[in-house]
Formats: sequence, structure tokens, C-alpha cells
Amino acid sequence: MSMTTLLLAAPLAVSLSAQSAPRQEASLTAAEVIAAATSDEWRDLDQENALYLYLPAGRVVVELAPEFAPRHVESVKALVRGGYFDGGAVQRSQDNYVVQWATRPLEDGEQLPTPGASPLPPEFEVPAEGLGFTAMPDADVYAPEVGFVRGFPAGRDPEVGVAWMIHCYGVVGVARANDPTSGDGSALYAVIGQSPRHLDRNLAMVGRVVAGMEHLSTLPRGTEALGFYASDDEWVVISRARIGSDMAPGERDQLQLLRTESDSFRELVMLDRSRHDDWFVYPSDRIGVCNARLPTRQKPSP
Amino acid sequence: MSMTTLLLAAPLAVSLSAQSAPRQEASLTAAEVIAAATSDEWRDLDQENALYLYLPAGRVVVELAPEFAPRHVESVKALVRGGYFDGGAVQRSQDNYVVQWATRPLEDGEQLPTPGASPLPPEFEVPAEGLGFTAMPDADVYAPEVGFVRGFPAGRDPEVGVAWMIHCYGVVGVARANDPTSGDGSALYAVIGQSPRHLDRNLAMVGRVVAGMEHLSTLPRGTEALGFYASDDEWVVISRARIGSDMAPGERDQLQLLRTESDSFRELVMLDRSRHDDWFVYPSDRIGVCNARLPTRQKPSP
Repeated sequence: MSMTTLLLAAPLAVSLSAQSAPRQEASLTAAEVIAAATSDEWRDLDQENALYLYLPAGRVVVELAPEFAPRHVESVKALVRGGYFDGGAVQRSQDNYVVQWATRPLEDGEQLPTPGASPLPPEFEVPAEGLGFTAMPDADVYAPEVGFVRGFPAGRDPEVGVAWMIHCYGVVGVARANDPTSGDGSALYAVIGQSPRHLDRNLAMVGRVVAGMEHLSTLPRGTEALGFYASDDEWVVISRARIGSDMAPGERDQLQLLRTESDSFRELVMLDRSRHDDWFVYPSDRIGVCNARLPTRQKPSP
Repeated sequence: MSMTTLLLAAPLAVSLSAQSAPRQEASLTAAEVIAAATSDEWRDLDQENALYLYLPAGRVVVELAPEFAPRHVESVKALVRGGYFDGGAVQRSQDNYVVQWATRPLEDGEQLPTPGASPLPPEFEVPAEGLGFTAMPDADVYAPEVGFVRGFPAGRDPEVGVAWMIHCYGVVGVARANDPTSGDGSALYAVIGQSPRHLDRNLAMVGRVVAGMEHLSTLPRGTEALGFYASDDEWVVISRARIGSDMAPGERDQLQLLRTESDSFRELVMLDRSRHDDWFVYPSDRIGVCNARLPTRQKPSP
């Protein structure tokens, strides 16, 4: 047997052209479920809430989530549009935890503009009512309920009536100091390891990386405490940051995301929950919220 | 406020010299608990079960776990000692999933030596009795019980009487094809993302990365299906692999690991479970098995 045939089954890899292997069950494969999703089960990336970061290795696209932290999202967009992230940098990369980036250094006496510089409300959780919530089928270690709100992983507490974005791989939050109102949107982080769920409800969460995640997750780890780079020379410069709706249409990522409210998404979750492919000998019959697959595709030509 | 002061609290970063901030509670910080651990709560890395991989960016050290997969560990060590991993390569790097590496390509007609080439028993789970098990305080999404067996994250089913290593960040398993006996130790993988727990009990788990994890997790992602590199030119070559006890003492990593059976480890888990540092506004009062901190240190001079 050639070594390259020793594959480890990879549920998160989506190949729409994959041939389905002979199976005992007649159920569809995940790739088939995704391929069979109807056009209205896909939604276009909202370019008004799409943050593009240009790093040396490539472009990262973050979908912003105003429903979870409206003031913080507003602040991030104002800072981007004011050019403050142009010449900013990734300053921290901590293995199995987060990367963190910030606006360009301010001049002496310079202040970030309103609303960025104004103290923002914490926005660590929001009223659950009216949010929409696709519940996951299994219990969670940390939250009373877990699921998805318009593509973002979320926790919910029905007793208190609040919801919050969950720290899964790729989510983006606003860094802050001890003061809960100290996060102004000028320093953001993305999760690059095991979901640090103890951070849930402690930070304003503004979005999720939907493309180019590898340009963040493979950055060299910083050698200082908390993974900060030892010197400014190691900073990974953000040449520019843009909001999609400000960009020429041809420059935008024509991404589509499978709606987490759709039947196809629910079917996919249940399929991934109980894997009966030939490879599996022990289907877990369980699935964690941060293990759910969130398919994307390029928008098909009309 | 300078941007670099916008820190995100990092429970996994250990600074033994950190000053403790004023707190309302008189409880110790995590760093203080680790610093206060007695010398017999630390154990030396067992060099007979330490696998060193030399990659271009640096050295990766894997602690092997014969209690979970004795035949597979034996096979891996035989392949290392036979030189089969010298000139091997990382062939796959899939974001938020695994990196996978293999022995050097075999010549036409060449076969791996016994025991590597013999079909090995699956060894996907082992009898729980006598293993020792430090249980985590909270329920788990996937397993009836979760905890640690001599430093390795583990699941346990008391009804069936079996235990298995859990797919947390940094654990190492033996890749296989569909045949459960097809994993021969010649292709190994390490988890570099959210714990893919659906793989539990489906693979022979042979260890955990205890040093140099960043040399695996930051490798460029492969662009082919499952994260395989598109061509052999992209393979990340393993110049050599060694077992610690075969190395000159001065070349070995003098690593110590906090015993997961120790009181200090249990105290650390409970402390991380309910964070009351000044930074936190909402202590989770929960902790997942893959979120537990596993402290290491360099062996102090006698």
C-alpha cells in the first residue's frame, strides 16, 4: 500500500465533485447534501458587513455580525473606513489560542475618531428574542443551549433570555483590557485553536473568518508572553483593510454561505453527527457546536 | 491607551514569574499553583517513549503512549529505529484539522519491517481497569466520562469498561485506510484545530506533542483535497527522527510534565474552570477536557 493512500477521514473537507463510495446505507453523503442544497438555501456574503484584510500571504475575509455587537461592528467599520487598519499589523500569534491585530500606531496625541474612541457598551450578550436560532442536537459543556444564528455559532440561555457568539475556531472578537468598556474595536483577535469557551460572554464578538483563515492560522507564533511578537520587526503588516461594499465589484469575494436556517444545513449536521461511511467503525452519534461544518462556495454564474 | 495594552486574557499562557494582581478572592493564580507544585508532582519525560522529529523549522517532541496502543507504539519506534522516518515528510496540512506525515517513500518491492508491516490489531480502545484516570469535573458532549491518563486526554465508558485517547489539540494518531487494521505506524497525524472528537475510538492513538507543536501547526496548508500538498516539492521533509533514549543525553529535551494525577493539577483545573481574575466578568464555571492546561517545564538543575 502506498503511503499516500493512508487517509484520515476528513469530515470538514468538502469536495463537491467527490465520487461517493459504495455504502451499506442509502443515505446521502455530506458532499451530496451540499450539492443538493437549493439556491435559496445559499445566501450571498453581505458586502456591507464583509471586512477584507490584506496580509502578505493573502486576503482574509471576515463576515461581521452586527446582531451580536452592533456598536462594536459600527466602530470597526468606521476605523476601517477611516484608514486606521491600513498599516496596522498582526502583533500576536499564540499557538492553540488566538492571533490578534490592531490599527496602525497612533501619533502622539492622536485619538481614534468617534465612535471608535468613545467608550462602547460591553455588548457581550444580546437579547435572544427575535434572533433566530438553529439549535444543535446535543448538549454542550458550557452553555444551556447552543446553535447557530445566521451562520454564527451561538449560545443561548432561555432562563435569562440572552444569546452570545461562541468562541469557535475562526470567530473574531474585540480585544480589551480589564475594564469591560475598554474594547474600542482597534484591536481584534481570531481563534486559531481549540475553542476557548471560557471567554464566552466576556468579549464583544464581531464576526467570523469566512475565507483566508489559513493566512492567520499559519502565522509564526510569537515568543513573548501571550504569543506577542518579540519586536515590531516581526509584526505581520496589514497593507490595507476594506469593507466589501466600498470595493469594486470585481475585487469582492463572490462567496456564498449555506444558510444555517436551511433544511440542508440541519441534514448536514445530523449526517456528520452519525458517520456511517465505510471508514468509520464507531459513529459518535454526537456533535459539538464548534465541530459543525459551515459550507461556503463561490457564487455560481447566473 | 496604547494598543498593545489591549490584552485578551490568556489562560493557557504560563508565566511563572507573573506578579499576581490584586484580587477580591485570596485564591492562588494558576501560575502560583504551578510554581507551588512539589518536585514529585512533576515527572521527567520518558525518553524511551519520546519521539523527536526534526523539521526545517525546528524539533517536535511527541510523548508516546504505550498504554493506549502498545503494538502501534512498538511499530512506530521500530520504524524510527530502522531509519524509515529519516527523509520522510509532512505531506498534508489541513486547516482546523490535522497535519500528517509519513516514512520515506519505499523502493519498488521494499516492505516495511516487522512489526510495522504486519497487520496490527485496531487498538482503538483499551480496558479501562488499572489505567488510572483523573476525571474532569464537567460532563462532555461525546463521552460518558472524560479525564486524563498519565498526561493524555482520555474518554472512558464505565458500562463497557473501556478507555481511549481523545482527539484534543496536539494528540498524535496512526492514519489508516478503510480497513481498521491498515494503520501500520508509517503515517501519523497530529490535531491542529478544534478537537475532531468524531474520530475518537476510530484510530490508534499513539501520543501527544509536548514540545515544538508550533512547527507543525504553522505549516502551510495544502491546497489539494484533505489538505494534501499539491506536489512532492511542497512536502516538509523530516531530516531525521529519533527515540530519546537513543540520543546523547545532551541532545534530549529535559522536559518535565506536571502529573495529571497530582493535587496541583486538580487544583489548576478547578481554578481555570472558575476564573475570577480581574479581567473576567463572567466565569464559565465549566471546563472541557480539551481546554485543560497541561503544564511543562525544563527540569530544574539539581
